Amino acid sequence: MNKMQLIEKIQQKKSFLCIGLDTDIQKIPKHLQTTQHAVFEFNKAIIDATKDFCVSYKINTAFYESQGLKGWEAMEQTLQYISSEHFTIADAKRGDIGNTSAQYAKTFFETLPFDAVTVAPYMGEDSVKPFLEYTNKTTILLGLTSNKSANDFELQKIGNNFLYEKVLQTAISWGTENNLMFVIGATQASELANIRKIIPNHFLLVPGVGAQGGSLQEVSKYGMNKEVGLLVNVSRSIIFASDGENFAEEAAKVARQYQIEMSNYLEEYL
Amino acid sequence: MNKMQLIEKIQQKKSFLCIGLDTDIQKIPKHLQTTQHAVFEFNKAIIDATKDFCVSYKINTAFYESQGLKGWEAMEQTLQYISSEHFTIADAKRGDIGNTSAQYAKTFFETLPFDAVTVAPYMGEDSVKPFLEYTNKTTILLGLTSNKSANDFELQKIGNNFLYEKVLQTAISWGTENNLMFVIGATQASELANIRKIIPNHFLLVPGVGAQGGSLQEVSKYGMNKEVGLLVNVSRSIIFASDGENFAEEAAKVARQYQIEMSNYLEEYL
Repeated sequence: MNKMQLIEKIQQKKSFLCIGLDTDIQKIPKHLQTTQHAVFEFNKAIIDATKDFCVSYKINTAFYESQGLKGWEAMEQTLQYISSEHFTIADAKRGDIGNTSAQYAKTFFETLPFDAVTVAPYMGEDSVKPFLEYTNKTTILLGLTSNKSANDFELQKIGNNFLYEKVLQTAISWGTENNLMFVIGATQASELANIRKIIPNHFLLVPGVGAQGGSLQEVSKYGMNKEVGLLVNVSRSIIFASDGENFAEEAAKVARQYQIEMSNYLEEYL
Repeated sequence: MNKMQLIEKIQQKKSFLCIGLDTDIQKIPKHLQTTQHAVFEFNKAIIDATKDFCVSYKINTAFYESQGLKGWEAMEQTLQYISSEHFTIADAKRGDIGNTSAQYAKTFFETLPFDAVTVAPYMGEDSVKPFLEYTNKTTILLGLTSNKSANDFELQKIGNNFLYEKVLQTAISWGTENNLMFVIGATQASELANIRKIIPNHFLLVPGVGAQGGSLQEVSKYGMNKEVGLLVNVSRSIIFASDGENFAEEAAKVARQYQIEMSNYLEEYL
């Protein structure tokens, strides 16, 4: 799925919700933990219950890799299970010298055919370019993240700009508005108006709403552009809404609440 | 293996060579490419042939992930095959918000019991801390990398310092000289004297010698400290020294040349 198809889905579903499958095996309901394909079974139930309320699923690779081979298999099964009607993101935050980044791009665009992958900017252009060479895929570069320690480097000044602003300013020439997005944390919503001055047209993947405390209304108000331009990710507060046998139903309820709230903001701010 | 044991091995073997197993399946000898466990068979032969000349092996996770499940299996097999006499590094360049970094730390310190993992600093302290909580393991943080685009951000000025200097200055308080190392590219050897002013005692993992053109002599001259403090990684120019049936022998020859050169520098500069 590409950006234009994503925008179509957002308009159809009146939702710009991405659900993060941060499937921590310790946190899934007890009755599933002992089944053979516990992680996939959990994801399957969550996807079945929530698919109408979101336009995207984001697989956080860490939670799969930590389970070794079995986890990698669960990641493959989950990606296969998600319909082509959803924009699929590998939240992998990779980035290395060129020949190595080319292998990571192959991993998440070919071996596992995701629509998009998150990439870390620290090493600069040649570490990001191999991802952008897949022009029909989407590279999502870290800009300003939702964690407290964003202060350590991202919010340090380079000349008159924060490092993260320098990243945005520099990276926009590496890709196009169609194949490059940015991660901008919702916990920094006050920065969004300013960020929209630098990148008015790019899509933003916004984590930090929900468990991390970011405000969906502020994100929508300051972050939305004429093409919506927002994909707001919620992970834990949807997928772990309940740890009982009704976990999927409860996840659907929370996802639906987000969808309703989003449909209001689409009317109000678009 | 911890830092003290690594130093012992360096002194015993008169080598501070790390061999990078960037095992690109396209580049391994034709006669191996069709075997069932091609990547592992290749690594096994390289390890058997080179183990006396190096103190460490570095597995570049990208080359394994790009092969999917089969690649992950080859990574497991290779790690198991490397003896406990070698310092094992997962070159993974991970880093994410705290609960996710904790999963990556689990991946590379428990599920795959490496001695060390490389980590990206962009997101700051809380993205690195979960790795450092494993005090008997080693976290290797990116400082100044060996690629040309290090200029884009790492070599941008924050106040009077380059970003990478700010990373070094800030990160030294996160861990200890025993569980924290830094990646400093050999292609930037002129910076090493300056870097040693900021981090006189930490070990450095130095990529960029060999295919990327860094000088081993300069790295040794400007980077060595009283505990050696250097682990110089060479990947392609050793493991792909030949693509014939004699690939392992040729790899051993190149590794041995590096070991001899290193033993001279240990005498000259230590």
